[in-house]
Amino acid sequence: MTGRVQHDSSVSGLLSLTYRLLVCSRAMASKTPVGFIGLGNMGNPMAKNLVKHGYPVIAYDVFPEACKEFQDLGAQVTDSPADVAEKADRIITMLPSSPNAIEVYTGANGILKKVKKGSLLIDSSTIDPAVSKELAKAVEKMGAVFMDAPVSGGVGAARAGNLTFMVGGVEQEFDAAKELLTCMGSNVVYCGEVGTGQAAKICNNMLLAISMIGTAEAMNLGIRLGLDPKLLAKILNMSSGRCWSSDTYNPVPGVMEGVPSANNYQGGFGTTLMAKDLGLAQISATNTKTPVPLGSQAHQIYRMMCAKGYALKDFSAVFQFLREEETL
Amino acid sequence: MTGRVQHDSSVSGLLSLTYRLLVCSRAMASKTPVGFIGLGNMGNPMAKNLVKHGYPVIAYDVFPEACKEFQDLGAQVTDSPADVAEKADRIITMLPSSPNAIEVYTGANGILKKVKKGSLLIDSSTIDPAVSKELAKAVEKMGAVFMDAPVSGGVGAARAGNLTFMVGGVEQEFDAAKELLTCMGSNVVYCGEVGTGQAAKICNNMLLAISMIGTAEAMNLGIRLGLDPKLLAKILNMSSGRCWSSDTYNPVPGVMEGVPSANNYQGGFGTTLMAKDLGLAQISATNTKTPVPLGSQAHQIYRMMCAKGYALKDFSAVFQFLREEETL
Amino acid sequence: MTGRVQHDSSVSGLLSLTYRLLVCSRAMASKTPVGFIGLGNMGNPMAKNLVKHGYPVIAYDVFPEACKEFQDLGAQVTDSPADVAEKADRIITMLPSSPNAIEVYTGANGILKKVKKGSLLIDSSTIDPAVSKELAKAVEKMGAVFMDAPVSGGVGAARAGNLTFMVGGVEQEFDAAKELLTCMGSNVVYCGEVGTGQAAKICNNMLLAISMIGTAEAMNLGIRLGLDPKLLAKILNMSSGRCWSSDTYNPVPGVMEGVPSANNYQGGFGTTLMAKDLGLAQISATNTKTPVPLGSQAHQIYRMMCAKGYALKDFSAVFQFLREEETL
Amino acid sequence: MTGRVQHDSSVSGLLSLTYRLLVCSRAMASKTPVGFIGLGNMGNPMAKNLVKHGYPVIAYDVFPEACKEFQDLGAQVTDSPADVAEKADRIITMLPSSPNAIEVYTGANGILKKVKKGSLLIDSSTIDPAVSKELAKAVEKMGAVFMDAPVSGGVGAARAGNLTFMVGGVEQEFDAAKELLTCMGSNVVYCGEVGTGQAAKICNNMLLAISMIGTAEAMNLGIRLGLDPKLLAKILNMSSGRCWSSDTYNPVPGVMEGVPSANNYQGGFGTTLMAKDLGLAQISATNTKTPVPLGSQAHQIYRMMCAKGYALKDFSAVFQFLREEETL
Repeated sequence: MTGRVQHDSSVSGLLSLTYRLLVCSRAMASKTPVGFIGLGNMGNPMAKNLVKHGYPVIAYDVFPEACKEFQDLGAQVTDSPADVAEKADRIITMLPSSPNAIEVYTGANGILKKVKKGSLLIDSSTIDPAVSKELAKAVEKMGAVFMDAPVSGGVGAARAGNLTFMVGGVEQEFDAAKELLTCMGSNVVYCGEVGTGQAAKICNNMLLAISMIGTAEAMNLGIRLGLDPKLLAKILNMSSGRCWSSDTYNPVPGVMEGVPSANNYQGGFGTTLMAKDLGLAQISATNTKTPVPLGSQAHQIYRMMCAKGYALKDFSAVFQFLREEETL
Repeated sequence: MTGRVQHDSSVSGLLSLTYRLLVCSRAMASKTPVGFIGLGNMGNPMAKNLVKHGYPVIAYDVFPEACKEFQDLGAQVTDSPADVAEKADRIITMLPSSPNAIEVYTGANGILKKVKKGSLLIDSSTIDPAVSKELAKAVEKMGAVFMDAPVSGGVGAARAGNLTFMVGGVEQEFDAAKELLTCMGSNVVYCGEVGTGQAAKICNNMLLAISMIGTAEAMNLGIRLGLDPKLLAKILNMSSGRCWSSDTYNPVPGVMEGVPSANNYQGGFGTTLMAKDLGLAQISATNTKTPVPLGSQAHQIYRMMCAKGYALKDFSAVFQFLREEETL
Repeated sequence: MTGRVQHDSSVSGLLSLTYRLLVCSRAMASKTPVGFIGLGNMGNPMAKNLVKHGYPVIAYDVFPEACKEFQDLGAQVTDSPADVAEKADRIITMLPSSPNAIEVYTGANGILKKVKKGSLLIDSSTIDPAVSKELAKAVEKMGAVFMDAPVSGGVGAARAGNLTFMVGGVEQEFDAAKELLTCMGSNVVYCGEVGTGQAAKICNNMLLAISMIGTAEAMNLGIRLGLDPKLLAKILNMSSGRCWSSDTYNPVPGVMEGVPSANNYQGGFGTTLMAKDLGLAQISATNTKTPVPLGSQAHQIYRMMCAKGYALKDFSAVFQFLREEETL
Repeated sequence: MTGRVQHDSSVSGLLSLTYRLLVCSRAMASKTPVGFIGLGNMGNPMAKNLVKHGYPVIAYDVFPEACKEFQDLGAQVTDSPADVAEKADRIITMLPSSPNAIEVYTGANGILKKVKKGSLLIDSSTIDPAVSKELAKAVEKMGAVFMDAPVSGGVGAARAGNLTFMVGGVEQEFDAAKELLTCMGSNVVYCGEVGTGQAAKICNNMLLAISMIGTAEAMNLGIRLGLDPKLLAKILNMSSGRCWSSDTYNPVPGVMEGVPSANNYQGGFGTTLMAKDLGLAQISATNTKTPVPLGSQAHQIYRMMCAKGYALKDFSAVFQFLREEETL
């Protein structure tokens, strides 16, 4: 995509120059207003961190009550994504799913109705990377820039401002995006062209789900074969079975302190969210004809857990789900 | 099992005393002969390390040619496991499968035909923990001691003498076992009662197989979605998807040096061996009614790989197996 | 959806009346031209059967050479789907995938650019039922009628005119659709509202894939345990394991005559097509949060087969895929 | 195995002759006593059918109370399997699992302690075919004959005397076995050498489990996509998805009468029994290195169902298990 700028012929060169000037005027203008659309569990603390860093925030949420708090904080509340786009040339969106993102960007009152040329639109939602690419195309047609920047880390990290952002998009825009994202996260990683931020996130979460279920299976089997859980965890962690789920977030109650398994699987990363991310991985794998035998099975397991009362428990509760014993 | 010693009534107390004396006389007699049965790829370098540490070795293998080398090294070669048991009261066995172990211990010319009271029998084979327990019972009836001590680490570690041993059996015998095992390994871990050494090993390897396949799936999906493999590995390794298979033994050629994926998947831990260990995990899970949805799927995947020409490749070749693309 | 017609208030009643008149004029006009878009392996013989039944056909295919044959048969060949819509008020589309269907209906030169009010548009492609619903909405906005009518039965059935059509859409339009579909199929089943034709097809094919793989696994296991394949098939077919894959389309060479397994898995229903349908089932299941543990695994197995050289073989070749034995 | 009789040299010929005479004397002696070991849910009605057909029954069960009823019916109750073997030269065993069968045949008071030469021992338990083969070897050493003859059909069929027996063993003994088995079953099928009766049963049940889960998934997905369950069942049953689970034992309440799904999944074939049979299939597959990707997944699903309160429900309750919806 960078080639577009480098190898320009005369006409597109002029357009490109204009584009760069527009971009520059925006990128330099720090502390000009920043739009924020989607003030839910995650968006709320993220937007607050922008306020704390001195950015005037132009806020919108489909539920007006979600905006009230921001009015009190001095943010300007608007009536639609289009209105946000009219008032801010840098916008962050944080939405629950692909259809929401499509609506917010391309809907009847969507951002694209009033987006200014050269605007920087950063989508931190976790959605299908194919949808990110579609949005990027639509945004680019309007002369603006789109980047996908999904986050890793939950509500706690959002409050503490130490989320990880995985960013996809044109590389020369990365610094501009980073300026804003570092207000909300401690780790901002450039992943490649548009969609690769989503790709990195869903690949990580698919592997996470697989290794969490694997850890739960291995711990459960070991316990039934007579091993002490703490000892087994210690052995795994010094061997080739070691993984984040075994050494940092062990799913077996009593093995570690300060993790959801020590607190009846409350807090953490909900099973229903993991099921959603695995659904995205599944769709991406289907679209690219990539075999993901364990990833698809992990998806089914979290899907079944959601239906068995685990929807709101941390995803490490898969240990509890699997350990239940046969009762007649 | 230690209760047997502590809460003894008068008669069993006397037996226990005799037992302890027998055990003591053996345990103190360092550098008395050590039997070694099974001189294959792993047993060969392990037995050599015992020789290097000054132990007179009494050797046996079902293939006489496997013993020749040891004759040259000054070891005494015998005609049967029973003969080994006649000449040594400490014996290490290293056999390919459960049926072999049953034959060597309880067969017509097996160890138990001539085992001396108080002998220490250490089985380093990787077998069904239920079989280890059966063997332990049979050995105990003869007044001897059985421990299971499967190893982690391949031929290279066996040669270098830095295997990991996971040991199950009566705790007060652990020191006696450790004396010998430290000649062959750098890490000797006590796991609990008989069978828990096997349990620890198969739980670790099941989790290893799952996270390796998961890593291969995630890397392959990420690459098809446009991510650079090195960058993706880096992101996973600083995130919750991190595991030994991603950070120490990455299955994607070009990501790391000095691992089988950098060398056409030669060397390392063969797919056929992983399939064997997963079969043991499956049988243990079936016997204990433990659900292992990903473990059983991992077993099937390695089973299919064996039939598709990957039997002798390192188990990280699952990446290659999954990455192949549709051809018409 | 029928409620719209029954419970109409005055204004919508008038619209409804107009609508019914338009529909009537079209439905009565038998032997008026019928459009056919998509003249591939399936569309070609289907369209020919319409010609045979005396319907003037207005043809279009993205590959002009696919149309030549129809010109010779007296069909009128057009330049775009829009042109077809201008000349025919009954159109059948037979396209390879969801994106193609979206393009043909809603693209720059798509049907909807020139569709006449009251037209009947029947899509026989196998696509995501959610896409069928979207297309139906877009068609309805133009005052026309959309039905999904995917087929079961391959190229042979298409030639012989004995396909099965599974039809979704407004019930009162079913007879009009049936008039055309019976020229191409011997079995036309009404399934319910728009999208249910697709739903019926992907549910059937998902179950088919699962029971075919299950039959292959059971036959292979039985053979390795010493059973004669013909005898085992006979036992399964008189027992509770009986299924179409075991009694009508047995995947084991030598068990039945006249099936792909008797002919090196040539002909029949290709593995790559089964993988496609399972992908649709997977996406529908993900979207409706329905757990399909075996359906998703079946998808992965056919995906892997495509990458292992089975893409063009009949889907019963899964027996061959699974029976291969370990070779060192 | 028949070769043993056909190609005999002089000495083994003499032994063979003796053997055939012994066998003959027993096989002709109809209405001589028949031993029956294992009078549980299935064994009880089976043994009663033998009594009804005029056979004097020599009974044993590990629970003495299970025998009382037979004492009242005129059967002779004994103290051990060995005692049964002393009094009857035709014995049927019906036991819950492999370890029980091993104990009854080879235990301290097992059949083999007092079995008469030429006796016919028929094991109707469902166990690992490898165990059947081991038992057959041990029985043969004592000069007697062993056949495996597991049943299909539940308690109802056992009462009605219309079980199906799948019989493995020496073919020339089949008629002798059939004489007894036809008193208890309407269908007695010869499958091949020892172990093939078990093999046929577990292959059928593995395929049954797979197609039942597949039917449940397809019906559930179809319903969520808007299809009427009865209509969907009708479509599947006239298409390639048709199977015994869809057309004879449909798992969806309301689709069929007179099946467990019409009666809250009571009666029928319990989930815990299906899980057991799938465990045997898994062990056989592991031992023969046969890939059974869906069979192993079906095993895991029934295992999880057992732990989620479905142990005693009919195995078609997998529909209920999968249909549960996410609740927050």
